[in-house]
Amino acid sequence: MNTDGQNMYHLAERLFPICRSITGNGVRDTLDILKSIYVNMNIYEVATGTKVFDWTVPKEWNIYDAYIANAKGEKIIDFKQQNLHVVGYSLPVDKKVSLNELKTIIYTQSDQPDVIPYVTSYYKERYGFCMSENQKQSLVEDEYHIFIDSKLKDGNLTYGEIIIPGETKEEVFLSTYICHPSMANNELSGPVVAIHLAKWLASLEKRRYTYRIIFIPETIGSITYLSRNLDYLKQNVIAGFNLSCVGDNRTFSYVESRYGNTLADKVAKNILKYYYPDYKTYTFLQRGSDERQYNAPGVDLPLCAICRSKYGEYPEYHTSKDDMTLISPDGLQGAYEVYQECIMGLEYNDKYKINCLCEPQLGKRGLYPTISQKDTYNEVRTMTDFIAYADGSNDLFDISNIIGVPVKKIISVVDKLIQNNLIMKV
Amino acid sequence: MNTDGQNMYHLAERLFPICRSITGNGVRDTLDILKSIYVNMNIYEVATGTKVFDWTVPKEWNIYDAYIANAKGEKIIDFKQQNLHVVGYSLPVDKKVSLNELKTIIYTQSDQPDVIPYVTSYYKERYGFCMSENQKQSLVEDEYHIFIDSKLKDGNLTYGEIIIPGETKEEVFLSTYICHPSMANNELSGPVVAIHLAKWLASLEKRRYTYRIIFIPETIGSITYLSRNLDYLKQNVIAGFNLSCVGDNRTFSYVESRYGNTLADKVAKNILKYYYPDYKTYTFLQRGSDERQYNAPGVDLPLCAICRSKYGEYPEYHTSKDDMTLISPDGLQGAYEVYQECIMGLEYNDKYKINCLCEPQLGKRGLYPTISQKDTYNEVRTMTDFIAYADGSNDLFDISNIIGVPVKKIISVVDKLIQNNLIMKV
Amino acid sequence: MNTDGQNMYHLAERLFPICRSITGNGVRDTLDILKSIYVNMNIYEVATGTKVFDWTVPKEWNIYDAYIANAKGEKIIDFKQQNLHVVGYSLPVDKKVSLNELKTIIYTQSDQPDVIPYVTSYYKERYGFCMSENQKQSLVEDEYHIFIDSKLKDGNLTYGEIIIPGETKEEVFLSTYICHPSMANNELSGPVVAIHLAKWLASLEKRRYTYRIIFIPETIGSITYLSRNLDYLKQNVIAGFNLSCVGDNRTFSYVESRYGNTLADKVAKNILKYYYPDYKTYTFLQRGSDERQYNAPGVDLPLCAICRSKYGEYPEYHTSKDDMTLISPDGLQGAYEVYQECIMGLEYNDKYKINCLCEPQLGKRGLYPTISQKDTYNEVRTMTDFIAYADGSNDLFDISNIIGVPVKKIISVVDKLIQNNLIMKV
Repeated sequence: MNTDGQNMYHLAERLFPICRSITGNGVRDTLDILKSIYVNMNIYEVATGTKVFDWTVPKEWNIYDAYIANAKGEKIIDFKQQNLHVVGYSLPVDKKVSLNELKTIIYTQSDQPDVIPYVTSYYKERYGFCMSENQKQSLVEDEYHIFIDSKLKDGNLTYGEIIIPGETKEEVFLSTYICHPSMANNELSGPVVAIHLAKWLASLEKRRYTYRIIFIPETIGSITYLSRNLDYLKQNVIAGFNLSCVGDNRTFSYVESRYGNTLADKVAKNILKYYYPDYKTYTFLQRGSDERQYNAPGVDLPLCAICRSKYGEYPEYHTSKDDMTLISPDGLQGAYEVYQECIMGLEYNDKYKINCLCEPQLGKRGLYPTISQKDTYNEVRTMTDFIAYADGSNDLFDISNIIGVPVKKIISVVDKLIQNNLIMKV
Repeated sequence: MNTDGQNMYHLAERLFPICRSITGNGVRDTLDILKSIYVNMNIYEVATGTKVFDWTVPKEWNIYDAYIANAKGEKIIDFKQQNLHVVGYSLPVDKKVSLNELKTIIYTQSDQPDVIPYVTSYYKERYGFCMSENQKQSLVEDEYHIFIDSKLKDGNLTYGEIIIPGETKEEVFLSTYICHPSMANNELSGPVVAIHLAKWLASLEKRRYTYRIIFIPETIGSITYLSRNLDYLKQNVIAGFNLSCVGDNRTFSYVESRYGNTLADKVAKNILKYYYPDYKTYTFLQRGSDERQYNAPGVDLPLCAICRSKYGEYPEYHTSKDDMTLISPDGLQGAYEVYQECIMGLEYNDKYKINCLCEPQLGKRGLYPTISQKDTYNEVRTMTDFIAYADGSNDLFDISNIIGVPVKKIISVVDKLIQNNLIMKV
Repeated sequence: MNTDGQNMYHLAERLFPICRSITGNGVRDTLDILKSIYVNMNIYEVATGTKVFDWTVPKEWNIYDAYIANAKGEKIIDFKQQNLHVVGYSLPVDKKVSLNELKTIIYTQSDQPDVIPYVTSYYKERYGFCMSENQKQSLVEDEYHIFIDSKLKDGNLTYGEIIIPGETKEEVFLSTYICHPSMANNELSGPVVAIHLAKWLASLEKRRYTYRIIFIPETIGSITYLSRNLDYLKQNVIAGFNLSCVGDNRTFSYVESRYGNTLADKVAKNILKYYYPDYKTYTFLQRGSDERQYNAPGVDLPLCAICRSKYGEYPEYHTSKDDMTLISPDGLQGAYEVYQECIMGLEYNDKYKINCLCEPQLGKRGLYPTISQKDTYNEVRTMTDFIAYADGSNDLFDISNIIGVPVKKIISVVDKLIQNNLIMKV
């Protein structure tokens, strides 16, 4: 049934095995596959050493193989089976170590003894391995061979950018990230939903807004992107969303912008209120993804995040349990629909004003019942309520909030009233 | 005891039998009786076909007789016994019909099988009858004689207007309607309370505000009235109230203006809070009477409604059960008193400012106990609290809300402080 | 342990026996002892008859002895044992009276039959005695000798003032009162905490603000002080506190300014929220001490009150039970600490702005963990949260409220960020 959901899930399956990081060929391979879904994507490379605000683009990291073998030569962990086994950005190593020495470079998640944690060390050069706490506990005295075949050297940071032009230069901005190795909800769900939104947006007959969708490494990627585009974004972005953790089917979550008061927040709260009334709200204190950069003082983009189970808030987060069984076609589909509704609401979002004084006579236009009996008034309630607040001071979302009717339903009323020349945009 | 309540109830009894509609002689007869209570009422006639904003004044409707008789000539319903039996604005008819045909023009209230509903068809020409669902179910195969002796032709829409001048041109506006046939709470209570408020207002020694009280047919009447008076009303009306359903004794209700933030709303909420703390609040989404027009975008009059049991919210609404047993002298009296308090509050409503720095020495003016012991301060609390907030920024209702004391009680403090030259109006 | 608390308690013990009133030698003796703790106190005398706004400085009252004796010459009450036995400002008297006549000049607290109430009559000349209701009930028919050796004649109203200069002329204002006879929480706690705050403030290496601490009689004293200093105070005071009832150990209380919206209110609410989350809030309607004058319309000083058990709200208030057993070193210490935190918060209170765009790279400055694993972000949460809201629009208390961290803890973050040149004051 959910063709889009199925397609998104299948795409995630293709992308899942790739070992991504904030730089390197895993990012390039991922972007190539995404580009095969939506071809008009520009891919950019930013050289190691480039200053980006307070940061510097780091060396490029690539990894080819890694394992720990015991004295018998048996691999007790193998990067080729599970790329989370290696600490991201690990230096190459090839030596024999005792059990004690081995333990100093092993990371586990002690409160979840059966999972392999996701660990990185982007800005301090080291090497390390991740395994389950159970496995670590079972290790015996032995001479271990630790081997990482990686390269950390000058190269580039890679990201993708899609621009889908609209009638105006004003933009809706979507950002998602492609820097996580084999984890599903966080983060393949964001890229696969984003690329399908791109396809859908491009298929629309017309678009009022221009849509900008970027696929970047988290933190350093958004900082890099902002350092190259900030002035333009500040002038043109009317609303933006960070797409992350949009693949499971357990709940919806909304993460406020810095003050929770941007147009994006207004849209997110309104759409979720009707689509999934039990959605959870997180303040900006509970932020954790690239909304940190987009909402930083001086950046101040009107951006919030809509997730399914939010990063940091579900037990599988940043572990080997965040695998393809955690996300589902339905989960992806739900997020996809919510973002579609947000976008359609934005496309229709105007302040409207009724063209006559007092209530219009809807009856003579066939928009009102001709017989007046108790309760007949209720039948056209949405229309009369919309008209009552179409006073030029409220936008579509304001009216939806005031009259308690989803934007989707109001849009059809707006169309009827415009056909009858009863309202105009302010 | 409630002389006013008794008088209002007796007036309602006189008016009850008249068959009113939005035009016609029933309206004229009603206005004549009201004018006999308060003679300075101007009565206006507006010709059929007059354009009033998006609407047109309809033909005038008059009815003289109507019934359904069975083949034996027995009247099974008779307009002369109960004028709700005829759909308002029914065309004349005089023919024999089968049971099946009869049923197509009979209206009932199926969820209340023993009541006759109130039904109208002002803007589509048809005829019809109303009866109880029980009676409809009991009808047998027969040849029925349906007879309506009515006239629907060019004429006038009739309304009454009282202007009671005050010291200023600024106005308090009261609107009520006289277009419903034999129903009591909705709507004879509004006109009878309004006409007694007119008498009381005229009896006052002085009035700061001018009072405008109109008796109109609902919807088309308020639209017609606004089309002729809007500019003047917008310039001069400081607060207004729609008087409807003010006769039963079950509760008080307040219907907000479009945004619930006008002076009228402030007055209504303040007065009801102390007079009847359990009053019910309805948002503008639950509007239903002429506040729909007065609060329409571009009209924007500062008007709300104070009711007893609100239209649409009590089971007898728009049925034959809304009869003289539903309203009472006490019910009418309560509404009358609330409106009197609203008006007195408005008359005294100013921003006051104390004339000295720090608290004044009330003791030397005999306004404070001379012995200081625990709790003596409380005795003059209303006065000292009033003074504390008489800083020129709060009006009477603000201070009443802040200090938790009814306006009625504060007015006597204001009088004492003015006598002692301790406060002034800002 | 609480050296300050002990010192404050001992000082209260020294001051307790003195019979203070709004004028007279009790006030002077009290100020002399306080001056021995902090010598830079100026003592002022304002002559009887001086006009102070709507009031006049009253005659000076001194009392030397008083008693009621029965016919056998036995003193049934003795001012020298308990100075609450005499109504404050009693005229001298020396005569024999019957039991009936005696009863007309005896004041009791009938709802607490075992306490001697505190009663005054400053502005109406009379004499009177206070005793417990139980004692009054036990009086038998007899000839009683009533004797008061007091003087009420032209003199002065006396008050003390400490000014501790800071880097700016902007002031923090503390006011407390020294007009109550032998009662402990209300009011020796205020003066003893205030004089120790003066000592502490003077010991600070530097002070941004100037501190003004006054010791006055209640009501007439604050009115007198304001009449001589109002313009200067209005120009320079940024926040003030009325110190009263700060000695017991049962709770903390906060009394709002007139609208609860001054900087002092913001400080009080913030500090108490973290220091004593169960503190009680009283609106300005529940005021009762000199905040009445400081917040009067036209005076409008930004002042509120932080108390332990608030005046008027504890059973011992204004009775002989408000004695040295009611207050404690811990109680005084708690209030002292809260006021210290309020002051330190004010000293550090600025709007801060981060110096870079996007989040700064804390890691390269050693302020962020180098390994990234689930939850590591939380460790530096206070710092990143502070930075997120250091956008130039929030002061220290705003950020504390937004991020849910006490000002005390934020101050150390501010120091680190300033050292790293990451933030600046706006």
